[in-house]
Formats: sequence, structure tokens, C-alpha cells
Amino acid sequence: MAMSNNYGAFIEKSTISPTASSSCPSLKGLTFAIKDIFDVEGRVTGFGNPDWLRTHSAATSTAPVVSSLLEAGATSLGITIMDEMAYSINGENAHYRTPVNPVASDRVPGGSSSGSAVAVGAGLVDFSIGTDTGGSIRVPASYCGIFGFRPSHGVVSTVGVTPMAQSFDTVGWFARDTGTLKQVGSVLLQQPDLNATEPSQLIIADDCFKLCSVPRDLLVQPLVKSVDKSFGGNTVINKMDLGEYIQENVPSLKHFMTSETQQEFCIPSLMALSSSMRLLQRYEFKMNHGEWVSSVKPEFGPGISERIEEAIRVSGEKIDLCRLVKTQLLTALSTLLGDNGVLMIPTVPGPPPHLQADVVALESFRSRAFSLLSIAGVSGLCQVTIPLGLHENLPISVSLVAKHGSDGFLLSLVDCLSKFI
Amino acid sequence: MAMSNNYGAFIEKSTISPTASSSCPSLKGLTFAIKDIFDVEGRVTGFGNPDWLRTHSAATSTAPVVSSLLEAGATSLGITIMDEMAYSINGENAHYRTPVNPVASDRVPGGSSSGSAVAVGAGLVDFSIGTDTGGSIRVPASYCGIFGFRPSHGVVSTVGVTPMAQSFDTVGWFARDTGTLKQVGSVLLQQPDLNATEPSQLIIADDCFKLCSVPRDLLVQPLVKSVDKSFGGNTVINKMDLGEYIQENVPSLKHFMTSETQQEFCIPSLMALSSSMRLLQRYEFKMNHGEWVSSVKPEFGPGISERIEEAIRVSGEKIDLCRLVKTQLLTALSTLLGDNGVLMIPTVPGPPPHLQADVVALESFRSRAFSLLSIAGVSGLCQVTIPLGLHENLPISVSLVAKHGSDGFLLSLVDCLSKFI
Repeated sequence: MAMSNNYGAFIEKSTISPTASSSCPSLKGLTFAIKDIFDVEGRVTGFGNPDWLRTHSAATSTAPVVSSLLEAGATSLGITIMDEMAYSINGENAHYRTPVNPVASDRVPGGSSSGSAVAVGAGLVDFSIGTDTGGSIRVPASYCGIFGFRPSHGVVSTVGVTPMAQSFDTVGWFARDTGTLKQVGSVLLQQPDLNATEPSQLIIADDCFKLCSVPRDLLVQPLVKSVDKSFGGNTVINKMDLGEYIQENVPSLKHFMTSETQQEFCIPSLMALSSSMRLLQRYEFKMNHGEWVSSVKPEFGPGISERIEEAIRVSGEKIDLCRLVKTQLLTALSTLLGDNGVLMIPTVPGPPPHLQADVVALESFRSRAFSLLSIAGVSGLCQVTIPLGLHENLPISVSLVAKHGSDGFLLSLVDCLSKFI
Repeated sequence: MAMSNNYGAFIEKSTISPTASSSCPSLKGLTFAIKDIFDVEGRVTGFGNPDWLRTHSAATSTAPVVSSLLEAGATSLGITIMDEMAYSINGENAHYRTPVNPVASDRVPGGSSSGSAVAVGAGLVDFSIGTDTGGSIRVPASYCGIFGFRPSHGVVSTVGVTPMAQSFDTVGWFARDTGTLKQVGSVLLQQPDLNATEPSQLIIADDCFKLCSVPRDLLVQPLVKSVDKSFGGNTVINKMDLGEYIQENVPSLKHFMTSETQQEFCIPSLMALSSSMRLLQRYEFKMNHGEWVSSVKPEFGPGISERIEEAIRVSGEKIDLCRLVKTQLLTALSTLLGDNGVLMIPTVPGPPPHLQADVVALESFRSRAFSLLSIAGVSGLCQVTIPLGLHENLPISVSLVAKHGSDGFLLSLVDCLSKFI
């Protein structure tokens, strides 16, 4: 496997043939790649870390999500590199390698589904699957200039997928075009017909765009224009201060407000939201893997090591409040969106950071990223990353968020809108 | 303690004086009673079963909910009898005694917060606290002809309260009048000012009233008239088929549809909802108490014994789907209610059943009861039981359900409406 051809996306290149029984399976002829977090019968799932690989045995069955894609006629071309234990949104793996960002080779590809995003971005496969706990589909999609879909929490099976933090874990997918994105969705959501419905309203979270270094209009205008062309005046376009709305409607966030959440260039309620997300994530990660980490004492790369140590030290304090925040946010956003409303936010705070950037320099970027990512992350709503080409030679994107369970609606909508973007 | 004076409500009569430090505490002069599920420092919490009492030691601190009532100036007059391990909505305790229903002495008082409801219904205290997992506040309130409030899931502390099933456990309270109900709410919700807001709409779940043996108009008309008198034409009154709406908007319920859910005199989606609730409840109960039950082999009364055995046998299968149903229902009902909408349903399928009724004869009643109770139970929304006097000499009630987190709104609303009921 020559690095130059493959952008370092794969950890294992080996074909798995489709098992389709019908004469015209819906994904016939399409190729895909599988993040090294999904079980494939007879293979040890690597979870991004060599010590994990060494201490685990081969899977005795294939994750249902993988099987259903093979049954739908798709061919897997291999298993992709991921961040260690899915604990990063950067995409840099110190043990294996960092997959090369196909549109910005001096920038990180984004993680933790790094190889899956790169494989699609570089055109090595038609689509790929990954997981998204805190942003692991949405971020690499944005950084690699492709579409990425994080479904509503709980609607796509996570059986046979190594858990990270179950309150947030989702299985998501990447594609270069919205047709493929939707076709894969149709299989994984088990919804054969995804028909387009007009959105009732497009809500622009104006304050959230202030967290992003890309000029607002570059991100907002393409979709606003497309909504206008696609649905005429039928879709109301509203602007709002999302942070303020969340502050008012998620009262338990007050328990996560600190001096840090009051600093400049941040939205206090979203900072508190992301603290609550990170706390529950650490707690569930510890419940899942604390024992393994303590007994095996695995070697981790920079950044990952500190993060995992922090997770292992976490107590159960405030965990009930984290769950209450989830319920309150889900209620608040469901009420805000109503039937068929969509929310527009930046996916990330800007273009992909440089490779091997200093951790401290990245801190403010990471903090703003999690403010944005925790909106769908904590509520469990579905979110799609929509690439908007290059700005100053770097990939930029915007995101749409829709109600829990409106996955088919969101995939159809983005397919519809893409005609005018 | 003479049974005749106390309706058998208390398991222990002993005064705990208020600890109020302010000069004018909000619950000054009020007396209350505590379900035997709340920890009181130095006392063994009984959880309704003598073997539990025997095998547990004294609590080292008092549940914060109890402390906050004492701090607000209320005086506790004692600890009340409850159903064994909170695993019944009947109120019959074979080990201690069945508290006497103060408005229908040949009928069950309802449970599991039986003694707390009876203590209020009989006028022994001004208010009382209990818990509601599957209906343990709402049902005894209805059977004893008093107000009962089940708050939104997670908003009132359950610290120092013996758990039954955490996904559903809530701390609730009883009162004879809406002023007291609201005053207690103000303390427990930590919201000093509960101001009334007009409801935007009152949704009558027409199909749900078909599950109830009491003529529909007797339950629906008092509140409709009061809404009209209180808010003029500002509140829209809508009728709907709630079962159909839930069927369409909670797709995961299909995994809980069986031949049983298709039978006559039932609403299939609500039957499926209650199956999902009962499954997750059993699973969490087993996680909490399975080991204790297996090792101690406690003696249980009729009905309870079978129910606990069934819980101990349950596997983890479908548990993820139960949680998904919760999220989908919360989303669906939040969307339906919008801002300040309220839903009207019968609390229970009819007046309280006879004492020591045959289990088989009660099966259909129980099944319809859980169909109704699972609406707020699974979604985590708040619900208030509103007594509507006697019909054919037996107490009847209706319930209002409001959005998660709208507890203050619902308490103020019922206080407002009570003037014209």
C-alpha cells in the first residue's frame, strides 16, 4: 500500500464483497470504507491504538450497520485509520499515521473518523462510515470539504461498534455528493423512500457565527439563497441569538457556569453546554474503558494521553445534572424548531488547523468548536455538514440541524438545496 | 397510635420540627408527612418491606428534599406506609397494613405513596411527599380525591431517596388545595415566584377518555369551562387522537407492538409505550435491587412477589430501544405542546378498585392505567392530578400534562383554574 496513492487513509486494504440478494440493490456498484471501530467478523477491531489491538481478540460477528451496507450491494475497500479510542477531533494518530487532508495537505484531516473522511475526500471510495460522539463525523467532513451526516442519537444501530460514551455515540457517514449521502441514509435509517418536504423555517443562529473566523456571509448566504430558490417564500427565514435562548430554556446549565464561561469571544450557555457534554463523556468513557486503561497501561500519543488521564480521574458528581441538561435541551430545541424547522450554525470555528499545532494555541479553537458541536451532541438532534468550497485556499462548511428523528427530512432537504449551492 | 384516628397512614408518628432560620418562612405552620422511601438521618428507611428494614442500617443524612421543607418552616408529623419496594399502584401492603381510603373505605387508597395520600386526604397533615415512578403519586391522588403533582423528570432532587428505576423516578407531593400544592412546589422547585401565564392551547386527548369508565363530559367539562372563564378566548381548545399522533411520531414503538397491543378497548401505541416503560423499569429495578432480592430472599405480599420475580428475570434486550422511545416521545410531545400548551387526559381508567380485588379482574384496568400513566412517565413531562369530586359516590379526577420544565407554569395554572372548578 503506497502512501502516495492512498493518502494514508487505510489501516487495512482488503475488499469485502457485497452480499446483496435482490437483483437491483440500492447501493450496487458503490465502494465504501469502514472506520476501525466497527466489528468485522474474524478481524480484531483496532480502535486506533496498538495496545488495544494487541489485547483484544477477533470479532465473532460483523456490526449490523456494515452488514446492511454489504446487503445493499456496496463493496468495502478497507478499514480506515482513526484517532486513538476516538478521543480527538484532530485526526493525528501518533502510532499509525495521520491521514493526509486531500484539500489542504498541511492541515489536519479532522477526527476521530479521520481515515474515513480522507478516503472519501480523496476519491478512494464513494462513501464511508464512521462514528460521531463529540464531533468525529462533523469535524473531519468540514476539514476535508465533504458532506458528513450525524444522525439523531439512537436511530442507527451501534451494535458491534466499540463504545466511546453511549449518551452521545452515533454512527455517521461521509459522501462527496448529497445523492450518495441520502442513498446511504436510506439504507442505514431503514427508510426506503426519503421524500423532500419544505422546511417551515430556517433559523440562523446569528451569535454562533461570531464564534467562527470565516466571514459570516460566506457561510450563511449560499444556503439562504438556495432556500429561497428552492422553496420561494414558503420557508420563513429567522435570525436569533441561540445562546440566549438556550440560557433561558435550559435552566440546569447554571450548574455548569464558571468564570471560564464568562470570558470574551465565547457564548456562556454554549460553553456550559460543552462542559456538561465533556463531563458526561468522560464519565461514560471511564465506565467503558477505565478498567482496561488501568490494567493495560497503554501508550497514548500527545493530547490523547492527557485527555484519557483526565477521564479516568472523573467522579460521578453532577452526572445527573448532565442528563437533565440533555432532556432540557432536547425539549427546548424541539419547541424552537417545531415541525420541519431547521437551524443553521457553523460546523467548526474556522478552517482546519495546521498539523502538529501547539496544544495551547489550539485551546480557544477547541473550546469554540465544542460550543458549536455540543448543540446537536447534547440534544441528540441530527446534523449535516455541508461543504462550501475553499476560502483563502482552505475548506469551509456550514451545518444544518433538524429535529430528533427528522433524519430523512434533513437528508432530502440538503439534497434539494445542493442544486443551488 | 389508634388506627381509627390515623386511617393507618403512618408507619411511624414522630414530629420533626422545622429548622427555618428566616423570620417568615414560606411553609410556616404547615404540617407534612414523609413516604418511607426518603432518608431521615438516624432512621432506617423502610421501603415498604420488613426484610428491607431488617437488612439496612440507619441513614447517615436526611434527603435534601426533606431538609428543604423543614428549612421552609414545615413540621413533619411522621413517616407513611408505602407499597413494597414501590412496586404497585394499588396501595395494599400485606406486611404492615393498607391505609384506609378516606373517601371510599371499601376501595384501595392507591400506591405506592399510599400513606402519604391518605394522610392528606384524611386531613392529618397539610401536605405530604412521595415518589412517582410509574404512577405512585398520580394514582393515589386520584383515588383519595386530592391534588397530586409529579414534576418533570430530573428537576427535583432524588438524593437520599431509595431508587426504584432511575429513568422514571421522581419526587412528588400531595395537597388538598392548589395554594398549598403550589407553595410546596415553590420550595421543591427552588422557584420563589410562580406566576401564572395563560396557556396557549388546551389539547383534549379525546381517544384517551375512551379508556376511562367515567362519562367523558364529567371529566372534560369542568376544566374546559374553567379555562374559558379564566382566559376567555385566548386559549385555543383542541381535540385530538393522541394515540395516533404518538404512533406516527414515535417510530421506535413498532418494536413494542404485539398481538396484545391490537386487542379491543386499548390504544395500540399507548399499550406499546407502557410495555417499553415497564421493560426499562424492570431492568433498572433489577440493576438496583436484583442482588439484594437474590441474596436476602425477602418475603413479598401477593402481586408484588410475581412482579419482582418477573423483574429479576429480565434481560438487557431492547433496553436501547426503550431509551430511544423516551427520546422520541419527549420530542413529539414537546413539538405538540409548543410554548405553554397543556394536554388533558384521564389520570386513571376509573374510580378506585375494590380492596383485595382479584388480580385477573384487575388486569385490564391495570393495563389501561399504565397506558395513561406512561404518557408523562416515559416522556418525563410534568403532570398534575386534579380531583373532581365524587361520581356515584366514588372519587374521580382528570390530569393536565405540561412540557418538561414547565412545572411552575403547571402549578400556577391549576391554582388559577381551581377557582372555577
